[in-house]
Amino acid sequence: MGNSLGKKFVITSFGESHGRCIGIVIDGCPAGLPLSEADIQAELDKRKPNDAVSSTPRQEADKADILSGIFHGHTTGAPVCLAVWNEDAKSSGYEKTKDIPRPGHADYTAFLKYGGFNDYRGGGQFSGRNTAGFVMAGAVAQKLLDLIGVKILAHTVEIGGVRADSYDVISAEVVNNNPLRCADLRDAAKMLAAIEKARAEGDSLGGIIEGIAINVPAGLGEPLFDTLEGDLAKALFAIPAVKGVEFGAGFGVSQLKGSQNNDAFRIKRGKIVTATNNSGGILGGISSGMPVVVRVAVKPTPSISRKQNTVNIAKMENAELAIKGRHDVCIVPRAAAVLAAMMAVSLCDLALRAGIIPEVIK
Amino acid sequence: MGNSLGKKFVITSFGESHGRCIGIVIDGCPAGLPLSEADIQAELDKRKPNDAVSSTPRQEADKADILSGIFHGHTTGAPVCLAVWNEDAKSSGYEKTKDIPRPGHADYTAFLKYGGFNDYRGGGQFSGRNTAGFVMAGAVAQKLLDLIGVKILAHTVEIGGVRADSYDVISAEVVNNNPLRCADLRDAAKMLAAIEKARAEGDSLGGIIEGIAINVPAGLGEPLFDTLEGDLAKALFAIPAVKGVEFGAGFGVSQLKGSQNNDAFRIKRGKIVTATNNSGGILGGISSGMPVVVRVAVKPTPSISRKQNTVNIAKMENAELAIKGRHDVCIVPRAAAVLAAMMAVSLCDLALRAGIIPEVIK
Amino acid sequence: MGNSLGKKFVITSFGESHGRCIGIVIDGCPAGLPLSEADIQAELDKRKPNDAVSSTPRQEADKADILSGIFHGHTTGAPVCLAVWNEDAKSSGYEKTKDIPRPGHADYTAFLKYGGFNDYRGGGQFSGRNTAGFVMAGAVAQKLLDLIGVKILAHTVEIGGVRADSYDVISAEVVNNNPLRCADLRDAAKMLAAIEKARAEGDSLGGIIEGIAINVPAGLGEPLFDTLEGDLAKALFAIPAVKGVEFGAGFGVSQLKGSQNNDAFRIKRGKIVTATNNSGGILGGISSGMPVVVRVAVKPTPSISRKQNTVNIAKMENAELAIKGRHDVCIVPRAAAVLAAMMAVSLCDLALRAGIIPEVIK
Amino acid sequence: MGNSLGKKFVITSFGESHGRCIGIVIDGCPAGLPLSEADIQAELDKRKPNDAVSSTPRQEADKADILSGIFHGHTTGAPVCLAVWNEDAKSSGYEKTKDIPRPGHADYTAFLKYGGFNDYRGGGQFSGRNTAGFVMAGAVAQKLLDLIGVKILAHTVEIGGVRADSYDVISAEVVNNNPLRCADLRDAAKMLAAIEKARAEGDSLGGIIEGIAINVPAGLGEPLFDTLEGDLAKALFAIPAVKGVEFGAGFGVSQLKGSQNNDAFRIKRGKIVTATNNSGGILGGISSGMPVVVRVAVKPTPSISRKQNTVNIAKMENAELAIKGRHDVCIVPRAAAVLAAMMAVSLCDLALRAGIIPEVIK
Repeated sequence: MGNSLGKKFVITSFGESHGRCIGIVIDGCPAGLPLSEADIQAELDKRKPNDAVSSTPRQEADKADILSGIFHGHTTGAPVCLAVWNEDAKSSGYEKTKDIPRPGHADYTAFLKYGGFNDYRGGGQFSGRNTAGFVMAGAVAQKLLDLIGVKILAHTVEIGGVRADSYDVISAEVVNNNPLRCADLRDAAKMLAAIEKARAEGDSLGGIIEGIAINVPAGLGEPLFDTLEGDLAKALFAIPAVKGVEFGAGFGVSQLKGSQNNDAFRIKRGKIVTATNNSGGILGGISSGMPVVVRVAVKPTPSISRKQNTVNIAKMENAELAIKGRHDVCIVPRAAAVLAAMMAVSLCDLALRAGIIPEVIK
Repeated sequence: MGNSLGKKFVITSFGESHGRCIGIVIDGCPAGLPLSEADIQAELDKRKPNDAVSSTPRQEADKADILSGIFHGHTTGAPVCLAVWNEDAKSSGYEKTKDIPRPGHADYTAFLKYGGFNDYRGGGQFSGRNTAGFVMAGAVAQKLLDLIGVKILAHTVEIGGVRADSYDVISAEVVNNNPLRCADLRDAAKMLAAIEKARAEGDSLGGIIEGIAINVPAGLGEPLFDTLEGDLAKALFAIPAVKGVEFGAGFGVSQLKGSQNNDAFRIKRGKIVTATNNSGGILGGISSGMPVVVRVAVKPTPSISRKQNTVNIAKMENAELAIKGRHDVCIVPRAAAVLAAMMAVSLCDLALRAGIIPEVIK
Repeated sequence: MGNSLGKKFVITSFGESHGRCIGIVIDGCPAGLPLSEADIQAELDKRKPNDAVSSTPRQEADKADILSGIFHGHTTGAPVCLAVWNEDAKSSGYEKTKDIPRPGHADYTAFLKYGGFNDYRGGGQFSGRNTAGFVMAGAVAQKLLDLIGVKILAHTVEIGGVRADSYDVISAEVVNNNPLRCADLRDAAKMLAAIEKARAEGDSLGGIIEGIAINVPAGLGEPLFDTLEGDLAKALFAIPAVKGVEFGAGFGVSQLKGSQNNDAFRIKRGKIVTATNNSGGILGGISSGMPVVVRVAVKPTPSISRKQNTVNIAKMENAELAIKGRHDVCIVPRAAAVLAAMMAVSLCDLALRAGIIPEVIK
Repeated sequence: MGNSLGKKFVITSFGESHGRCIGIVIDGCPAGLPLSEADIQAELDKRKPNDAVSSTPRQEADKADILSGIFHGHTTGAPVCLAVWNEDAKSSGYEKTKDIPRPGHADYTAFLKYGGFNDYRGGGQFSGRNTAGFVMAGAVAQKLLDLIGVKILAHTVEIGGVRADSYDVISAEVVNNNPLRCADLRDAAKMLAAIEKARAEGDSLGGIIEGIAINVPAGLGEPLFDTLEGDLAKALFAIPAVKGVEFGAGFGVSQLKGSQNNDAFRIKRGKIVTATNNSGGILGGISSGMPVVVRVAVKPTPSISRKQNTVNIAKMENAELAIKGRHDVCIVPRAAAVLAAMMAVSLCDLALRAGIIPEVIK
């Protein structure tokens, strides 16, 4: 259960890290949207491991494959099923450690919940690999959002305690062209140094990513419960490793007085805007027309080569585990692509629900 | 739209601040649960304004009224409808300022989304008053959770930048018996001083609340999308003023290495536990059996008496607004009761979905 | 569970026959719709018992009470909660027979499903009285459908085996002005005679009602599963006593060849129509623009005064039951109002889902 | 939209007649169920064309392919994705007639709803071919129902006006071993003769199928709206060509008095049963423990070789169409397999919702 998200642009995930494929079905995509595998591939490629920050030895082409829903180069209104096929899964090593849950991983809870029937190879459906499906869905959602001018950018604001604080502007070009997805190259260099240090220590690093959506039409979000914040947060907590979500001033609101935190309304070139954006573009759970700003906390990758204390479930005794092989030292920059994708999915769903994106694209 | 939450324990909110009542329908409450208005009243009373931190002049009895679903003192399996009737709403003042949205409020976005048809009196359905319904639903959910031993406590960890850092243990008795809902009375005194200062300045304060649920059975949460984190976060962002949600180490994960953040599994008295709880009791979106720990950021009440910049929507020109009357200086302690209620609602829904709470209570 | 229906125009039912009230919450009603209690009362009155066909001694005013969602005479976009208050429930008689389920009633299955905690007074939430809520929701839905010209008429086509076959046209005026809701007064007279005979025998009669919706825009229905037929059928089977639903030629298709059953497309005054309407206005689960025609089978009221065989659940032995008091001999004509209401609810939901009715009425 | 069905055992359909594949994702299948492709294939084969009644020239192996959710021969709790790959689609002929909708088909409504972007080759997602996915999901559902003893049999009760009325008992062996799926071989012979006659005339025949589920536990169905009747009907109307659904005495209730239609409760071998089963095993929308009996009306296949009147949408003028190639003369017997599958899907969903089938199979 729980593998579908959304009410009008509904995505359903399937597949496992070491199974046949990772797939996603999109139900509710309007008819008439031009869509090709190249459109999706461009987004998938942003999620790929890059040598600077990761070193996963698994070589996957992650080539987008459209299984349904496209005819003559356009969506038909029928479900769009997208898949990437697993080609380089090496599962032999997992039998040995199947009773020894990795600290910080879903191994233990998946074992409990599914009575030991869960596919433990590479984390099964709990693998970060499943976010390939999220990114494919995000690519379609973004194409729909393009129709109403919404642009989304996700960038790294902190890694291993190193804060990006040098940038004046956030340029998509700068962000997308450095492996740290950082808005400032000097900050990126510091982050990289921290990552290199952690790698040498057999350790991993977490961080914080910020997603910004501009040109979001006012009126997205369905209070009281399907608020823009609530729906976005739910979508973002589906990204493995995310442990916190905040909007606008976020946890910083505790430091502000009402007179500081309230964003004054002003008329600017005939339009109502706010002088500040502590609300992150959301008031009463509804978009205000200002940029939607969200930050997520990404925990350090749990798979580390340092020896860790754990248990043997079968023997019910304490055990130690040193995870072999090479792993991502820091998934934060890769997670930026997933954050942008899930923002797109959620905003697109709410835009369809509000009738802002039509049922047929003409 | 969006006024229902949950999949098995489904709550549907209705009512407005200055309408007839605030109500909530619970669909999916198992049959056979003993339930009286007194059970609900006890929780509602925790949400009441208290003189220390608030000074809302509106006098509402907020008496729980059961409209359906109870027979011979037990739930019947049919929907439970609960209401509190509005008795002291004074709406005359709102006509004057209906075109002048309060900064930081939903006034502006509700106007846009609902084409000006929204009930603007006291914020209509966006009023914090609607959380009375949340608390009533939470009272029922908590009674169900009692059957499996789950206890929830919410306490204030920060107000106006004053951090509660003196406590060694978190005692429900201490928390519930001081108006700040703080685990340490010395910290509570400091927070109170900050609140008094803000009150004198015609300003307001935000803060941070922490919710802790113990004895949560392992296995709650339905990945990939209906994760324990995602579902809780969605429920918590329904509380007006919440701008951030984090679990366990939360945004602090960015400062930790994997070797620090990973919670080591250990055998303790024949059970598997973790040595630390940076995960907040959640791994892979599923409860691990450790305490579920969540913190929410609550923004300062937007209604302040200081003069603020805003606009007149009808005239499309800049305007000023000084909100008359007395308002809550700091809603953080009252929000603690709502946080606990929404945690109960969400955990109860997931426990029912996982089949841990039965369909009929015997 | 299961007390909500719809995806965009979502109705949630609460209340019991002998409880405080019967209520319905509508979530998703667009803002800006003029709505008064008089609008709803007009529909409720159509459902009232009439002396010709029923003789329920319970005297209920069934006065519509709006609890939320209306401001300045218009819907606000917030949930609309509507109720009728029970005023004449006499519950004393039910204790005696609580262990003796009435044949054909929900008494037995409700007892099993809810572990004996169900409210057995007057059938509790299984009472036909709950359809007062359906009719109130239908009144709101019909006002929305009026905006796009959809008109719905339900009429009696059979009672106790007496078929209405004399009418040439179906006139709303004729249907609404005879207590049988029959399109021909001669047929109505025959049905009435059959009812009188059954009444004299202490028995009851079932029948068939037909609902017709005209001006239904093409494109309603969301295949594969939320088809117009599937969604309508689900809504109609919520009406107590309905045991069959058929569209267009319905079960008669078994007698037809493809060349007879296929409705030929033709151009008529510049529009595409079909020469016949065996499809009942629905092809591939989607409305075609032709009238939507549905018929439902309504079983005879199970409450009859003749002695019947049943069991005593507490003693687990055979028993006899003769239901005292006066009951409806034939609910078919009253059910017509409910059929029309549920058609309106379902069509309105699909029209909102298809974006044909806007989010804000201007 | 609308391509998912169910609340706990949720199926999501994708694929088109002439696309890459037909697929179905099952979310909510309990972990621990032994499942192989052979299990699914056995059911798929029952849906295959057979020479007696059909003559579709398309040669599809319809081999079940498991894409996810199975590990070590058991379900894992993760979504199960199943597909059959299209291998023999010949699409060239469809371009010529794409503007000429086939009478009785979804061609016209799909064109309208999806703005002409629908995949018109072989009916696209409206093709009967999509029921291959239904049957695969049904195979999984039936394996779960096996755990609680539920058996389902679907048999043909009428074809082209020829009623099966000779059988005394309904034997699964007889039904499954004649191509008509008829409970009596003499009746089957008469039906076959009618089919041969229609074939010679270039015409097609409809019919009626009955589905019977035995050992259905009491308590399935979630009133008021997710009733057993409502949920089953919704599932069954998803089968192309179904135009009517009735339970137990169905439309015949109009001919019965209450004293005839009411099923008397009786004690039999220490259990409560009913003497008759006019209710079709359902009272108040909840299963009573008696056999669940449902009948569906299946319209004649619209694709016939006789010349028919239609229109040219592009030219907006009247046109004629004679559908080339060989088609099923009568899909009724093949639809029986689909009926059984959808009954299984729906009953399984309700059994999971009621907690009767556990979350993990041990």
